[in-house]
Amino acid sequence: MRAPDELRALVEESLSDLRLDATLGALEEPIRYALGGGGKRIRPVLCLAVAEAAGTDAENAVQPATALELVHTFSLVHDDLPALDDDDERRGRPSLHVAFGEAVALLAGDALLAEAFGLAARSDPPEIARELARATLGMIGGQYLDVSGAQMRLEELHRLKTGRLFAAAVGLGLWAAEIPAEHQGPWRAFGEELGVLFQAVDDVLDGDGYTVELGADGARRLAGEAAQRAHERLAAVEADTSVLAELVDGLAVRTA
Amino acid sequence: MRAPDELRALVEESLSDLRLDATLGALEEPIRYALGGGGKRIRPVLCLAVAEAAGTDAENAVQPATALELVHTFSLVHDDLPALDDDDERRGRPSLHVAFGEAVALLAGDALLAEAFGLAARSDPPEIARELARATLGMIGGQYLDVSGAQMRLEELHRLKTGRLFAAAVGLGLWAAEIPAEHQGPWRAFGEELGVLFQAVDDVLDGDGYTVELGADGARRLAGEAAQRAHERLAAVEADTSVLAELVDGLAVRTA
Repeated sequence: MRAPDELRALVEESLSDLRLDATLGALEEPIRYALGGGGKRIRPVLCLAVAEAAGTDAENAVQPATALELVHTFSLVHDDLPALDDDDERRGRPSLHVAFGEAVALLAGDALLAEAFGLAARSDPPEIARELARATLGMIGGQYLDVSGAQMRLEELHRLKTGRLFAAAVGLGLWAAEIPAEHQGPWRAFGEELGVLFQAVDDVLDGDGYTVELGADGARRLAGEAAQRAHERLAAVEADTSVLAELVDGLAVRTA
Repeated sequence: MRAPDELRALVEESLSDLRLDATLGALEEPIRYALGGGGKRIRPVLCLAVAEAAGTDAENAVQPATALELVHTFSLVHDDLPALDDDDERRGRPSLHVAFGEAVALLAGDALLAEAFGLAARSDPPEIARELARATLGMIGGQYLDVSGAQMRLEELHRLKTGRLFAAAVGLGLWAAEIPAEHQGPWRAFGEELGVLFQAVDDVLDGDGYTVELGADGARRLAGEAAQRAHERLAAVEADTSVLAELVDGLAVRTA
């Protein structure tokens, strides 16, 4: 069982070793820029930790975990575009369209998504590529709800926009470890809580979302309750889930 | 062996029966709009015709053929955006961002790509999803060359931007028919010529690309040569390729 920092190093190594399709040519530079910049790699680390807890080497889940990080990065690049959130900064640096122009950012995002599916399609079992596609669609559905201003509960929005990739992080780790669908329930229940925990803390740090709806104390309380339920869900899993418990605690107290 | 029109009807049926991911919600309307509008369905029809010529029922290739049309439609939606070609019309109707706004067009394009990969990931054999991802990356690489104004031969640009999806149309049909890689060569050589033929005729009709480089007569001559070579390649394939020959002739004389 490797600690979160070791798993994160494995993700960084996989990302820097990633061979992009040669036809992308000079589009590689903006793609690398988007993948760099100090992301926390929470989703791929979660994927690897689940794979190890479920009984396989993290190496066997590195390809799907990397694909998941590419999907996450694609979503950031497109969300930052002027047509969507119009964010000029990302992780303290100019966002991709500010640094390279809108056309390049649009195409780099498209390429990140296609690279992600290429990686997933080369992973076994085939459920990995299927789950990644479904999770991506759910995330896009959430982003659409967000920009369309449809009336809905914040919880529903987050369940799609953030929750789907967290759920996929757990799911991809389980498929990589060859855990059959009928034994995945308790693990997936844990993933749901982790998504809520992540988003509630995010909203406290950014002062939006749940903080607006529930106040800062209310959002903190929600995060605390989700963390507690995540630990309870882990207790129901028959495996050594100590590293996953560490990830829960890390998410609960993060400050960035 | 079904005629091109029958294969086209199969594609239309598959597209209208397509069940989009439920989480996309009201994004379904713009996605359906983009998929409608009287596209010629050249790529999926080619895929089905190859599958039948290679010895399987077109039905066995309908899912990958549909995925390919989704990728093509994704590329049109994103290419039309103001950041890229800034086209207000597509097939005589307002383009997607004019009809629904830029944010929606961006997300609808993303969703089309993710739906395509989801379909491909549910298709057998796994080479289908892998080939679709590679072809998509090549196409994006071509689009990047186009917008970056890099110095290159027009032929190279078209080989990526148009040629990759034509090559994939042939490839997906062959995989669906379970033709092993070592027997695919002659078919794929045919696909290359068909891509050139399509693009040369397109440039004659639009008065750009090869027409600018070679003049209208030169572009027409290029199209004629590609059509002739496509027929020669078909003659080298040991199968009943009569429907594919019909597709070549249809592409050579098309006026829209």
